[in-house]
Amino acid sequence: MACGEFDLIARYFNRVRSVRRDVIVGIGDDCALLSVDEKRLIAVSTDTLVSGIHFLPDISPADLGYKSLAVNLSDLAAMGADPAWLSLALTLPEIDESWLAAYSDSLYEQLDYYGMQLIGGDTTRGPLSLTLTIHGLIPAGRAITRSGARIGDWIYVTGTLGDSAAGLAILQDRLQVDSPRDRQYLLSRHLRPQPRILQGQALRDLASSAIDLSDGILSDLRHILDQSECGARIHVEDLPFSTELRRHATPEQALRWALSGGEDYELCFTVPEINRGALDVALGHTGADFTCIGQIGPCGEGLQLLRDNQPVTFDWQGYDHFNQE
Amino acid sequence: MACGEFDLIARYFNRVRSVRRDVIVGIGDDCALLSVDEKRLIAVSTDTLVSGIHFLPDISPADLGYKSLAVNLSDLAAMGADPAWLSLALTLPEIDESWLAAYSDSLYEQLDYYGMQLIGGDTTRGPLSLTLTIHGLIPAGRAITRSGARIGDWIYVTGTLGDSAAGLAILQDRLQVDSPRDRQYLLSRHLRPQPRILQGQALRDLASSAIDLSDGILSDLRHILDQSECGARIHVEDLPFSTELRRHATPEQALRWALSGGEDYELCFTVPEINRGALDVALGHTGADFTCIGQIGPCGEGLQLLRDNQPVTFDWQGYDHFNQE
Repeated sequence: MACGEFDLIARYFNRVRSVRRDVIVGIGDDCALLSVDEKRLIAVSTDTLVSGIHFLPDISPADLGYKSLAVNLSDLAAMGADPAWLSLALTLPEIDESWLAAYSDSLYEQLDYYGMQLIGGDTTRGPLSLTLTIHGLIPAGRAITRSGARIGDWIYVTGTLGDSAAGLAILQDRLQVDSPRDRQYLLSRHLRPQPRILQGQALRDLASSAIDLSDGILSDLRHILDQSECGARIHVEDLPFSTELRRHATPEQALRWALSGGEDYELCFTVPEINRGALDVALGHTGADFTCIGQIGPCGEGLQLLRDNQPVTFDWQGYDHFNQE
Repeated sequence: MACGEFDLIARYFNRVRSVRRDVIVGIGDDCALLSVDEKRLIAVSTDTLVSGIHFLPDISPADLGYKSLAVNLSDLAAMGADPAWLSLALTLPEIDESWLAAYSDSLYEQLDYYGMQLIGGDTTRGPLSLTLTIHGLIPAGRAITRSGARIGDWIYVTGTLGDSAAGLAILQDRLQVDSPRDRQYLLSRHLRPQPRILQGQALRDLASSAIDLSDGILSDLRHILDQSECGARIHVEDLPFSTELRRHATPEQALRWALSGGEDYELCFTVPEINRGALDVALGHTGADFTCIGQIGPCGEGLQLLRDNQPVTFDWQGYDHFNQE
């Protein structure tokens, strides 16, 4: 990523000036963490979705209403936060009442489900885009950050990987799936990702670090490694794939989508050996599968991919909005 | 405003569902007010600025860095909040490093001045626009809302009105100003509006309601009247104009810009008779002029404009992004 999105943010907008004592975690994690009293932290995250970049221009307003919030919720999940408040900035080329009705119905359905409230925002005219700023609450001292992974910790992911990239490929006619059921499954994994809020909450006292998978494991896990100052070994044969993906993608395609396809919105997290037993119990109660895919190693090792314990390399990169073309 | 910006927000995004007990003020004021402990409230406001709608496409990145934050700070000022944290969502058509350097330098200068910290955001590719979500802190019970005005309260504004609209007219070649000093003054009132943070803080225990003037008094004061369920009489001969505006605009132009020109970012607020003496002392210390322009009346009277105590009417509307054309 010579001049990628994250470098760009870091270079110009992550200055060490104006550090406030109430900012526990600033730029560079899934959420900022703010301290206002002794009992709780506020987690804040912002995501912008631009038509043609983050969603296909013909996406239904109901799917967009769902996904725009799910993407934002996923950042809260990665910190272990309870969803609370949403600000919505909506830029629309024109007032289309049926679009607005369908979008807002879908958004409110999710807000209700998570006990959240829309607290404000802005509506402006311009090319279609949305910026959501989500706020969550976490008991003080129990937030999960990207910087806590230690050598020997086990690396896990929730759910299955690569389904969302397959769903996008279907929408873009790059993947043919004849089975209506499988097609629907993969599409819904792309259009209706399930934010792992319950799992994030269950991981609060068990995980040493966590991140949500928005850009693919190769890219997202690197953020944990950078901030925890360590390396990692990933066993590619342990990556979890859905039956639906296995049925319709080649093993090579599935692997590529799992490693560097975007938008799975599963959690990737690390767990110290001592917490592995408790993890099985705690995450088992949430109804989501989870899979150990590797282990944290020393910093010098970087991020190694292993197949049958032998190093393998791929030239794929993580998903990067500014480096896509 | 048959189908204006505010109607649109209200119709689709101001549903009464999912009301949380910690949301003290939701949609419809300058900021939302959130309660996390007994001592303080968090004020949150979001503003989107789109190129060609909210700023001229050739604005300098330094001016945009200043103004994008000033507009957001002005919402905090209207509630009486102390600035704290900023989230910035930046959508850029391309990576232009000199633009980013100048924009971020200017933004950080303001952040430092106000003791604020940039806590996160998002950078995406797309047509140039910015969404800022600002967070402030207010001692519990001392926030100023739009809903507290009562019959008999006096209506004030800080500073002078119409300068920003005149500055915009200069930039668009609709106003000729030969004096370089006056031209510079009016331009800087448009490009570098001074958010009235100190004045908002001083008004905490004195004003019964407040709003910042982003769209012109005719439009903005109506929000106070709607939410306080009252009317108002404004004496147009009392509206404060700068010497610079008087020198270069006709009285009619100046009046129109004061009443329905946008982006002055002064405060309009109401004060009960009993607080007028204290107001002079408290606001006097902040270094800003302030002027009484009218009085709150019963709801049935609506918003009346008076010249020499006689009603006058204008067909100008408040500034409305969706109804400009």
